[in-house]
Amino acid sequence: MDVTDLKINDKEYLPTGFQATNLGRAIGIIEKMKKENATIFLTFTSNMVASGLRGVFAQMCKKKLVDVIITAGGSLDHDLIRSNKKYLIGDFTMDDKELHQKGINRIGNILVPNECYVYLEKFMQPVYEELYQSEKIVSPSQIARKIGEKTREDSFLYWCTKNKIPVFCPGITDSAIGLQTYFFKQKRKDFGIDVTKDMNELAQLAMNANKTGGIILGGGISKHHAIGVNLLRDGFDYAVYVTTSSPWDGSLSGARTNEGISWGKIKEKANHVTVDCDASIAVPLIMEKFLK
Amino acid sequence: MDVTDLKINDKEYLPTGFQATNLGRAIGIIEKMKKENATIFLTFTSNMVASGLRGVFAQMCKKKLVDVIITAGGSLDHDLIRSNKKYLIGDFTMDDKELHQKGINRIGNILVPNECYVYLEKFMQPVYEELYQSEKIVSPSQIARKIGEKTREDSFLYWCTKNKIPVFCPGITDSAIGLQTYFFKQKRKDFGIDVTKDMNELAQLAMNANKTGGIILGGGISKHHAIGVNLLRDGFDYAVYVTTSSPWDGSLSGARTNEGISWGKIKEKANHVTVDCDASIAVPLIMEKFLK
Amino acid sequence: MDVTDLKINDKEYLPTGFQATNLGRAIGIIEKMKKENATIFLTFTSNMVASGLRGVFAQMCKKKLVDVIITAGGSLDHDLIRSNKKYLIGDFTMDDKELHQKGINRIGNILVPNECYVYLEKFMQPVYEELYQSEKIVSPSQIARKIGEKTREDSFLYWCTKNKIPVFCPGITDSAIGLQTYFFKQKRKDFGIDVTKDMNELAQLAMNANKTGGIILGGGISKHHAIGVNLLRDGFDYAVYVTTSSPWDGSLSGARTNEGISWGKIKEKANHVTVDCDASIAVPLIMEKFLK
Amino acid sequence: MDVTDLKINDKEYLPTGFQATNLGRAIGIIEKMKKENATIFLTFTSNMVASGLRGVFAQMCKKKLVDVIITAGGSLDHDLIRSNKKYLIGDFTMDDKELHQKGINRIGNILVPNECYVYLEKFMQPVYEELYQSEKIVSPSQIARKIGEKTREDSFLYWCTKNKIPVFCPGITDSAIGLQTYFFKQKRKDFGIDVTKDMNELAQLAMNANKTGGIILGGGISKHHAIGVNLLRDGFDYAVYVTTSSPWDGSLSGARTNEGISWGKIKEKANHVTVDCDASIAVPLIMEKFLK
Repeated sequence: MDVTDLKINDKEYLPTGFQATNLGRAIGIIEKMKKENATIFLTFTSNMVASGLRGVFAQMCKKKLVDVIITAGGSLDHDLIRSNKKYLIGDFTMDDKELHQKGINRIGNILVPNECYVYLEKFMQPVYEELYQSEKIVSPSQIARKIGEKTREDSFLYWCTKNKIPVFCPGITDSAIGLQTYFFKQKRKDFGIDVTKDMNELAQLAMNANKTGGIILGGGISKHHAIGVNLLRDGFDYAVYVTTSSPWDGSLSGARTNEGISWGKIKEKANHVTVDCDASIAVPLIMEKFLK
Repeated sequence: MDVTDLKINDKEYLPTGFQATNLGRAIGIIEKMKKENATIFLTFTSNMVASGLRGVFAQMCKKKLVDVIITAGGSLDHDLIRSNKKYLIGDFTMDDKELHQKGINRIGNILVPNECYVYLEKFMQPVYEELYQSEKIVSPSQIARKIGEKTREDSFLYWCTKNKIPVFCPGITDSAIGLQTYFFKQKRKDFGIDVTKDMNELAQLAMNANKTGGIILGGGISKHHAIGVNLLRDGFDYAVYVTTSSPWDGSLSGARTNEGISWGKIKEKANHVTVDCDASIAVPLIMEKFLK
Repeated sequence: MDVTDLKINDKEYLPTGFQATNLGRAIGIIEKMKKENATIFLTFTSNMVASGLRGVFAQMCKKKLVDVIITAGGSLDHDLIRSNKKYLIGDFTMDDKELHQKGINRIGNILVPNECYVYLEKFMQPVYEELYQSEKIVSPSQIARKIGEKTREDSFLYWCTKNKIPVFCPGITDSAIGLQTYFFKQKRKDFGIDVTKDMNELAQLAMNANKTGGIILGGGISKHHAIGVNLLRDGFDYAVYVTTSSPWDGSLSGARTNEGISWGKIKEKANHVTVDCDASIAVPLIMEKFLK
Repeated sequence: MDVTDLKINDKEYLPTGFQATNLGRAIGIIEKMKKENATIFLTFTSNMVASGLRGVFAQMCKKKLVDVIITAGGSLDHDLIRSNKKYLIGDFTMDDKELHQKGINRIGNILVPNECYVYLEKFMQPVYEELYQSEKIVSPSQIARKIGEKTREDSFLYWCTKNKIPVFCPGITDSAIGLQTYFFKQKRKDFGIDVTKDMNELAQLAMNANKTGGIILGGGISKHHAIGVNLLRDGFDYAVYVTTSSPWDGSLSGARTNEGISWGKIKEKANHVTVDCDASIAVPLIMEKFLK
């Protein structure tokens, strides 16, 4: 394919070169996932749910574009809180001591007022009590589903619960929602979260699928969990990574799709691409076509 | 302080500028942690345990330089396997299809032969059985401690168990060791890992400490879990981050120490620094002084 | 401003958070540049001209959106060659030994066949002769203008010459076009390029402007030259940087706009933003509004 | 080679993995350059000369470890100024408006007081006059040599002049020293810098060498100029890059050594490695062995 000069109003990513080309490839690969009716695993990090990307995720779940979600505990926090409370746009260079004195928490250039976590506590304690009443030891996906029953339509968890899209959260205690279990356990000492409880369902989803596709946004535990479970079926058939991390330190977060092939986490014959770009810019461009 | 021209054989990091200065500051901050007898939280990602840094971590645990470890499940895999099997040095640009056909898995420029995971399975199934016999629902730190009882002196888990340094692993199912629980549960359906079980011990360690210090290597769940629990005591008194991730996408992995101040995860008055460098180079330089 | 969930088909960058917000700010700042009739300095690196961004630059010059261009010598090469020859889309992981044997040169995922440089030589030798006949010692901007006289309408140099937008190229010998002067000097030993010749014109443009704005894409000599000359007027009034480089090593390429304020290269009261994103994705999004 | 656990006091980079391995390879490649008596090209960016690395460069020139230097104009500024004036260690997060008001310029975490540039002006105007008296149109390397005649032993330019190591500076006008020529030309209108004047000497150095090696620190014009001229001899025989830039945007600064092979800028059979690390940390470790 020739490199083609960009014409505004007629943007074509594929023949532009560099990451624009990879972004174009990502769109093409997701088209194939859809066409082949692949079981699609979507993963994202919690900071993304603190941003406007939450709206994209909610639309993807509403339209049933994805079949499985794997994410960090913090994604549950932010999704839940933002149905009721506002986060603010700030700046990367704000004075963090001043912010702390004002009771404002910073995530890059997004600001989260302390009152958000007061709300979270008030919301979650009864949720845990309700879960506890039916079962003393729950799984992360049960918690996510229960929150989805109680939030609003702007929430991705709402749509996951409604559309029966399981939300796996293998590191759930590492979040504000997780910290709430520490408080909850002060009175309900025998409450627990058994993370092995979700493993069979997740494994079946990977193993029983005809084809699987991964839309892997950012790194961390969510990324690894998605590619890890696809080991059980000898790898993803389609994989799109969006990352800003570097592969040169051997980190999983920065690993490109091709590294996954050596492990059998992505098939040798898979269509795959790594888009090196901030998700807040890349994801809306990639998903535009599928959300119209 | 003036910028000072480097003289080889008399390397001084502090007055050199750029990340050398930050590396020098990291050493100074860890000196203060030690002098103030702070409870030190060490976190690292699992790829680091696949590298020679495992030796540094083992020495740190042997010398009781740290009091708490928080890490990813994969760190347990690599630590355990490498007591018995060899990983190899490869290259970042190797052909991953070829590697896959040869049964070799790539982590950056480190190669892990498949047989390593055969060994892991043989080792872990009886460990899970032994744990199960005493308790059906275990915690991640119990698993880590049990492995430490059975490995060799080159392993950091060995020294953690011996020296009673707890190893927390909030995302333990996301690893090869975690995947083994999926197999183990085929026969022992009521076996489980309750991740809330470790929360009280971890919380007490943070809350009861006079001072706390964090040596936070890389990002991910381990980093967040360490700073998250320090919220309960209004933040770390000392914090050293080593990272190669970018803060510009709002990710926790790329967040600098100052962002933690807004949250109360690091104290306003804390000594803190972020060293932007691959841990495989930075960590031996930072720890040299403390391991002599 | 509140963080707002993204709605596809109604993309708003500003309230999205992270780099999407910075991208939205960049658009707003360029709107102000235009409204205030600022003298706009555009800088870019040569790899961008090898990509589809060349089309964006050409349109910007055709529409007289910018007043001054500062770029690397290689931008002249690629602009000239691509009016006549095709570059191809490849991949970042291609085998470079194989490519070399096939006579194909790689720039990231863009491929440049050797014949392109045969064409360049055939084109440039008579151009240098023509320049030499009128003046023995020329300036970089004279060379750029002369090429613009002879290329096609798809070329940015064509529009710069036509619209009298000066193209400054302080490092011109470091390029294929520069290497051609080495060959040309074999027969015309007294031919030369005096880089000080362009300094007065550039300085006057900065000093005589009522307001100045910088659209600084990528790093290197072009970035520094633009901000350096604005020192003479106590800094840019408006500045947009697009970069993927890290500031943590003290490099100019990775320096954020705020560092420029300490130098007086950007005014204390300037509107400024740094967008951390690959230009191939960010630039079309930023310029869309202005090229319709 | 097996991955080997690091033992402090007996640091071995090669078997550690990740960038430590690449750092070990860099040392090995430079050993081969020396053993094979290769003509060594050293390139660096100007911010490095603002740091303590200036001392390493001066020692390398004093010991004649390198044969050719290619660098940015700013390296001449900083080298000259720092023989007489102090730069200070600051922090990456300082308030740039405050710094500006105090007359302090920031380079990452290095601070340059304004008086440094007053000194530069006082030093350089007579140097230009002296050069002008002997020749009206000079080359960048003549300027560098003349400064070296007049500075102190702590300066790398001093040792270059003394040891006849040519210093090429293809983008010289883009620097404070370059800006001084703008002022100088107010009175000496026919003074000029012909950048083509240095091309023959540089080309001969590459073409006449039996073997060539590159120690390429950072990116920019200096990096490209070194690999560009080695095209004339079908590429470097040995190449070490140290960079923090990303290759994913197709930039030359982020390009790995293997990309250079496609161009014939590095030989297919060359020994080469890219170390992804801040030079302020990596370079002293790499050069230690050679400067004892």
